[in-house]
Amino acid sequence: LSRRIWKMPVGQIPELRRARGRPQVRSDDDTRRLILDAAAKEFQANGYAATCMVDVGQQAGVSTKTMYRLIPTKADLFKSVVSDRIQRFVLALDAEALESVSLREGLERMLTAYGELTLEPETIAMTRLVLGESDRFPELAASFYELAIVRTTEAMVAWLKRHVRMEAFPVDDLTEAVGMLRGMMIMEPQRAAMLGRQRNLSAGEIASRARTCASIFVAGLTGVGDKG
Amino acid sequence: LSRRIWKMPVGQIPELRRARGRPQVRSDDDTRRLILDAAAKEFQANGYAATCMVDVGQQAGVSTKTMYRLIPTKADLFKSVVSDRIQRFVLALDAEALESVSLREGLERMLTAYGELTLEPETIAMTRLVLGESDRFPELAASFYELAIVRTTEAMVAWLKRHVRMEAFPVDDLTEAVGMLRGMMIMEPQRAAMLGRQRNLSAGEIASRARTCASIFVAGLTGVGDKG
Repeated sequence: LSRRIWKMPVGQIPELRRARGRPQVRSDDDTRRLILDAAAKEFQANGYAATCMVDVGQQAGVSTKTMYRLIPTKADLFKSVVSDRIQRFVLALDAEALESVSLREGLERMLTAYGELTLEPETIAMTRLVLGESDRFPELAASFYELAIVRTTEAMVAWLKRHVRMEAFPVDDLTEAVGMLRGMMIMEPQRAAMLGRQRNLSAGEIASRARTCASIFVAGLTGVGDKG
Repeated sequence: LSRRIWKMPVGQIPELRRARGRPQVRSDDDTRRLILDAAAKEFQANGYAATCMVDVGQQAGVSTKTMYRLIPTKADLFKSVVSDRIQRFVLALDAEALESVSLREGLERMLTAYGELTLEPETIAMTRLVLGESDRFPELAASFYELAIVRTTEAMVAWLKRHVRMEAFPVDDLTEAVGMLRGMMIMEPQRAAMLGRQRNLSAGEIASRARTCASIFVAGLTGVGDKG
């Protein structure tokens, strides 16, 4: 879970290598991969409005025709970039085969993974782009909300339900609780990084913050429960 | 504290009324007020780059000469708009004369005020503008970070130290704790509102969320302290 699976190498086979041997047929999946990596860079460098599909294709070394066949519009391209990143996070959560853990340990692991995803420079740049352009491009905002925020929240809730002993939840609204925890974990460091006021947290700092948040929250739920 | 002091009426005396009686001399403070209100609207409508000082002056009914005398640059204008809003929040906190309250009650009051400030549409629009433009205009990001984030955090920490019984802090790093609480309180609702995916929370919903966050956090600190 805490390995950075969403940053796994993406098989950018240089075009040069293909020139030598017999021509390889690239699968559509590999081609999509090249397009999405190029698109992520172009969006970050130029923003949404100024990013041009043809340029993305050129940067990816993919013909315009293939590009449009695989991804018909710029809105689709953006959605694919976001959902690709989120998908790796969700898959990493799903793939985890764990013995049942305590609520505190479960939250700590989950917050560590969430912190690593959301405090990474590329995610920060993407989040900033969406927030900045959400007025002009409401469809960006809608996709980002559904794909990034709702989807990760659901994955986190499902993961907790699967791995944490059920009697351990002293809370009715697990979705709200997860939302509070996410904010506790990342709002201040993510905002400071977005505003260029703080270097990124190290893996150790993320893990330590996750531990603090999980400990306070679990002791807090238990304490509140005791009094209620 | 929970009254919306930062939204108090701002004495926008219509120019028409002045045309009748004898000419009134407007104080520089009143003129600044007119400029800042007009500037807030222009920044929201056009973003930072496209906002023009001369237009702001015209909207405010203030001569360009006076405008530049009071506020020399667009960067100063933006800083003034942000710091004006924050200042009202800080003043509201400072003005509060309270008997010493429990940690839980103190955090609840403080989070309610913070939620009212940060979940208001104008604050959300301003935050979104800064995050979106922070790449192109790092000086905006720097001002916003210092004036809005650092300043409110300091005010909240100072307020807690003044009003909450000192023996009640089972925490070393009060600044970090306040940062976690802020995130717990506003990140998800503010982001949903920024992305246009959720109506604004009502005053009652803000108060209720503040109560939940304060209760969990305080019980959590106590529980964590008990175990340590």
